[in-house]
Amino acid sequence: MSGSISPLAPKIYAEMPPVRGVRMATAAAGIKYKNRTDVLMMVFDRPATVAGVFTRSKCPSAPVDFCRANLPGGVARAVVVNSGNANAFTGRKGRESTQMTAEAAARAVGCSEGEVFLASTGVIGEPLDATKFSGVLDSLAASGTEDFWFEAAKAIMTTDTYPKVATRTAELGGVTVTINGIAKGSGMIAPDMATMLSFVVTDMPVAAEVLQSLLARHTQTSFNAITVDSDTSTSDTLLAFATGKAALDPITSLDDPRAEIFGQALSDVLFELAILVVRDGEGATKQVSIHVEGATTDASAFRIAKAIADSPLVKTAIAGEDANWGRVVMAVGKAGEPADRDRLAIRFGDLLVARDGERAEGYDEAATSAYMKGEELELTVSLGLGEGKATVYTCDLTHGYITINGDYRS
Amino acid sequence: MSGSISPLAPKIYAEMPPVRGVRMATAAAGIKYKNRTDVLMMVFDRPATVAGVFTRSKCPSAPVDFCRANLPGGVARAVVVNSGNANAFTGRKGRESTQMTAEAAARAVGCSEGEVFLASTGVIGEPLDATKFSGVLDSLAASGTEDFWFEAAKAIMTTDTYPKVATRTAELGGVTVTINGIAKGSGMIAPDMATMLSFVVTDMPVAAEVLQSLLARHTQTSFNAITVDSDTSTSDTLLAFATGKAALDPITSLDDPRAEIFGQALSDVLFELAILVVRDGEGATKQVSIHVEGATTDASAFRIAKAIADSPLVKTAIAGEDANWGRVVMAVGKAGEPADRDRLAIRFGDLLVARDGERAEGYDEAATSAYMKGEELELTVSLGLGEGKATVYTCDLTHGYITINGDYRS
Repeated sequence: MSGSISPLAPKIYAEMPPVRGVRMATAAAGIKYKNRTDVLMMVFDRPATVAGVFTRSKCPSAPVDFCRANLPGGVARAVVVNSGNANAFTGRKGRESTQMTAEAAARAVGCSEGEVFLASTGVIGEPLDATKFSGVLDSLAASGTEDFWFEAAKAIMTTDTYPKVATRTAELGGVTVTINGIAKGSGMIAPDMATMLSFVVTDMPVAAEVLQSLLARHTQTSFNAITVDSDTSTSDTLLAFATGKAALDPITSLDDPRAEIFGQALSDVLFELAILVVRDGEGATKQVSIHVEGATTDASAFRIAKAIADSPLVKTAIAGEDANWGRVVMAVGKAGEPADRDRLAIRFGDLLVARDGERAEGYDEAATSAYMKGEELELTVSLGLGEGKATVYTCDLTHGYITINGDYRS
Repeated sequence: MSGSISPLAPKIYAEMPPVRGVRMATAAAGIKYKNRTDVLMMVFDRPATVAGVFTRSKCPSAPVDFCRANLPGGVARAVVVNSGNANAFTGRKGRESTQMTAEAAARAVGCSEGEVFLASTGVIGEPLDATKFSGVLDSLAASGTEDFWFEAAKAIMTTDTYPKVATRTAELGGVTVTINGIAKGSGMIAPDMATMLSFVVTDMPVAAEVLQSLLARHTQTSFNAITVDSDTSTSDTLLAFATGKAALDPITSLDDPRAEIFGQALSDVLFELAILVVRDGEGATKQVSIHVEGATTDASAFRIAKAIADSPLVKTAIAGEDANWGRVVMAVGKAGEPADRDRLAIRFGDLLVARDGERAEGYDEAATSAYMKGEELELTVSLGLGEGKATVYTCDLTHGYITINGDYRS
């Protein structure tokens, strides 16, 4: 954890209501951190349906392998998350560690190991000693409470400077259902996936396949549309659980009109959590939305937006409050996507800075510089080629990033 | 130009011999900088053959467009380079500016505009006022001397902290031929191209097509194998000229056995210049060679090496002298290339830190930490899949990079 809290931290945190059907507890197992909680256990007393999206890394962590194997079962009874050690690139020892944790969790809850989900975050390559916390899972399973979301979000933090929580409700058939989510992530954040870890729970009964479809769809415009540093974690894990405690018939098909309403609320939770991650980007002092429009396709627009959002030169210029739109042109050019230099237009907020491949007539340096001093910036690139559009969310690149990452492991 | 010189600057500079057939002169035109030269003119009194490699940016600068149009002619009489303004994304004004400069150069030298080559480096998007220096080209053309390489290298610098020169000779048919090169580049450096600007001249007579083939081939393992910050310039230009002044029959075919010998000397010059660019990477304190072996193909090895070399988390760890090989695993995983986590081995120098997907038996933290304090680091990743290999050269990512780029334009 960094010493100081991000200047972009929320001024007020959401009041997190309980979600019927899930209980949580945390412990301080001393995995790496002192004087703070580092283990979270979530328990579903009745089986919840489950959906998941994971890192596309070719070198995934042991817990990611473990979750992938269990996901087709579609049922969850327990989740164990630890911070301080990612259990990634730990070979046979890593698999033994997930096995030991899963056995202990299954025993504590009275379920099969196939109904347990695991996630770990922290240093890579260090063997994770699961005996440090496998012994406490019995007591965590017994003591968990429904009203514990904020504490849960705290226990999974690493370089995060604040806990990340979001909640939404939806009215379905006269019943209010709730979706709560927590996330952690600050560095090693890049689309596919960009989480690193997030857990979302609803009391709405939703079939696992439907939950999976909705989760995958809404990940595209939330966690997969943010980048802090273009680095992709070995451990990214987003899991959604439906406890089914709301007194409603389950959604078993995407054709159910309630899937749309529920999906929108889910999307809102995922988006809010994703933005909270960007705003806690390591060293971040500004949140930046990169909009690309007029591309040949949405996918092309996305790749251009990501090239801009990942450019160290764009990000350092923003940190320096420098309206250096020349670097935006550079990043458009390097994306390798269709672009016509002489049709390009660029806006910072509502200020047109470039048009038709050169500086805009009436460009106002003073107004643009004043705009750059803001904490939330909107940058729009119009390509003038087609209808494709996309938005990627990122932060600036500051001395804080270097300080945090030049001295993380030691 | 940054205030302090890179700690990786050469202790001794190469003595640059004249290359018969090319004269150079510089001027201080006040394009952006005060109290320093910012215009370089090279003159070939007899037509030189020419070859060139340019940025792959979709938003190239006006001078790049101009050179691309002239290159098929294969003949050069004059080169004009300015620093302080890239003449990129300057629309019609940019084309007018290259036109005015080319006309002035052609008039000064007595050649056609098709025999003039131009390059500009500096801020993007600012109209370049060519009247500032088009008036001095007459006197530069008249006053140029053969023994002016070091001054030439100085005039093209931007954020560079030292001038970059390299020279080689080759014995061909009892005659010593010379290849001299200069380069500039410090930030916005990424393969394809990674220069940003470099000019190489030989007195060896070489047909333009042969020169082009050799240049393209040896760019792959030099300028295209370095990265500072993954950002691709709008302006990258590498031009090679053969004045033909050596008393030898020209090389007109790659089958000429002299092409191999000459090509090796050319390759050495390009490689030395490329490494000089990396060592002057913005804020660099360490030079890092990333070797990848055992990949399925050379191209796959290159993409993995580049993913490691571009990773901000790897680069900040190196800046912090932290042997954080877990971040190397992360970068291998994000490259999207074939990789088997459980076969991966990683070495820092000769020290084996990871093998078979986990920390190596007998890993010595103290020895590894001591190794990281060095100024030149070798990092080797063995994938264990095939015979593909590649090396990418980069530097660390430090506070210096942020300082330089958070305040470059203003």
